[in-house]
Amino acid sequence: MNATPLIGVLGGMGPLATVDFLHKVVASTPASRDQDHVPMLVWNVPQIPDRQKALAGAGESPLPAMRHGIERLNQSGATRIVIACNTAHLWADALAEASAAPLIHIADAAIAAVERQGKPGGPIGIVATRGTLDSGMYQKRLAAKGLLFLTNTGEEIDALFTPGCYAIKQNRLDEGGALLESAARRLVERGARALILACTEVPVGLAHARSDLLPISVDPTQALADACIQYWLETRPA
Amino acid sequence: MNATPLIGVLGGMGPLATVDFLHKVVASTPASRDQDHVPMLVWNVPQIPDRQKALAGAGESPLPAMRHGIERLNQSGATRIVIACNTAHLWADALAEASAAPLIHIADAAIAAVERQGKPGGPIGIVATRGTLDSGMYQKRLAAKGLLFLTNTGEEIDALFTPGCYAIKQNRLDEGGALLESAARRLVERGARALILACTEVPVGLAHARSDLLPISVDPTQALADACIQYWLETRPA
Repeated sequence: MNATPLIGVLGGMGPLATVDFLHKVVASTPASRDQDHVPMLVWNVPQIPDRQKALAGAGESPLPAMRHGIERLNQSGATRIVIACNTAHLWADALAEASAAPLIHIADAAIAAVERQGKPGGPIGIVATRGTLDSGMYQKRLAAKGLLFLTNTGEEIDALFTPGCYAIKQNRLDEGGALLESAARRLVERGARALILACTEVPVGLAHARSDLLPISVDPTQALADACIQYWLETRPA
Repeated sequence: MNATPLIGVLGGMGPLATVDFLHKVVASTPASRDQDHVPMLVWNVPQIPDRQKALAGAGESPLPAMRHGIERLNQSGATRIVIACNTAHLWADALAEASAAPLIHIADAAIAAVERQGKPGGPIGIVATRGTLDSGMYQKRLAAKGLLFLTNTGEEIDALFTPGCYAIKQNRLDEGGALLESAARRLVERGARALILACTEVPVGLAHARSDLLPISVDPTQALADACIQYWLETRPA
């Protein structure tokens, strides 16, 4: 007997981004009644050491707290694991190893969405934390498809991206939205013809700012939601 | 040693209402970083038999599926249980009995919010499912405070309220919002001076419709979110 499908969500990084992810799953599911929606168990426990600080060597590792969440999700019957945070995917290998349920990687889902959109007429801008950029998780996958990319400078990350992210986490959406919009716009000014909003705070901020960059953007949160829905539609009991 | 606080959320009834509840918790929490937010574990598994049909004698009981969710939340360390659905509270006694973690009852949270608003200049309209109304869970609590109330007629429930609820569950927000708004407006036309939106689909629908009834409304979903935040602020480790 196959186990009943259950998406285990490691959330809380940040909490609003997790809610945004869940909303995207529900809003994008073809459903005529409650029972048609995707079954999810959400470990939305934000008491995880700061990922950006840990990567900068300025704080304790988030891995034990994340692994604890993954274990709880597995114990409760999760059949797939998703992590509603790009930066946390730096620990994806260690977490996948600690999980009986396979991980759906957010960058795989995002690159599949890029491919569905067709080739852009120029490089793809990646808006992400320093940790996500340093890992190369997006660059490697784009390069493998023969796609060009560009990223924010260190100055732009410090002045626009990072304070924008933290403002969203503090529920200061006007300020956070404007800062993250500016970070994304710099890439377009340097020639980006498409964007990957590769930090879960960014789509939240750009949606709040009603940004005109959204139509050329791929939202990995939405792509991950779509991958969860596809899994559910393929595996749900008849 | 006290257990680490963890709010266990029995969700999925309906899925969008659960996301709305989680959003209200995050948006209302005083937070300067991820780690300040309320730790929650969300059993958002909508494969629970239809509550309204079960109460009408036309379907199987939702209790076993709800009890299963409550057990999983307890096993994973929940220290309080909340149910993001008013109608499901008809089974609140049986669920509280199956739970080591105490239940924060949505109607208790809502009545506390009514009291914080002060006495309205007339009766309070209760917008709710037939099941919630038949249980008297809101009427009993209002009567105990000496407050008058009124409710929709059976015809209004059949023509406006119930189809409005199901439309929201199907992601048809324009239609659902308009129907639920009309159900609420009938109560105001009959003299209600305040409203309790005692079904989790109703605040979602009225917010989508940008209803001018929201300023005189108490939202039990928001009240339950506030009760969770208060619990977290009182019990969080120093």
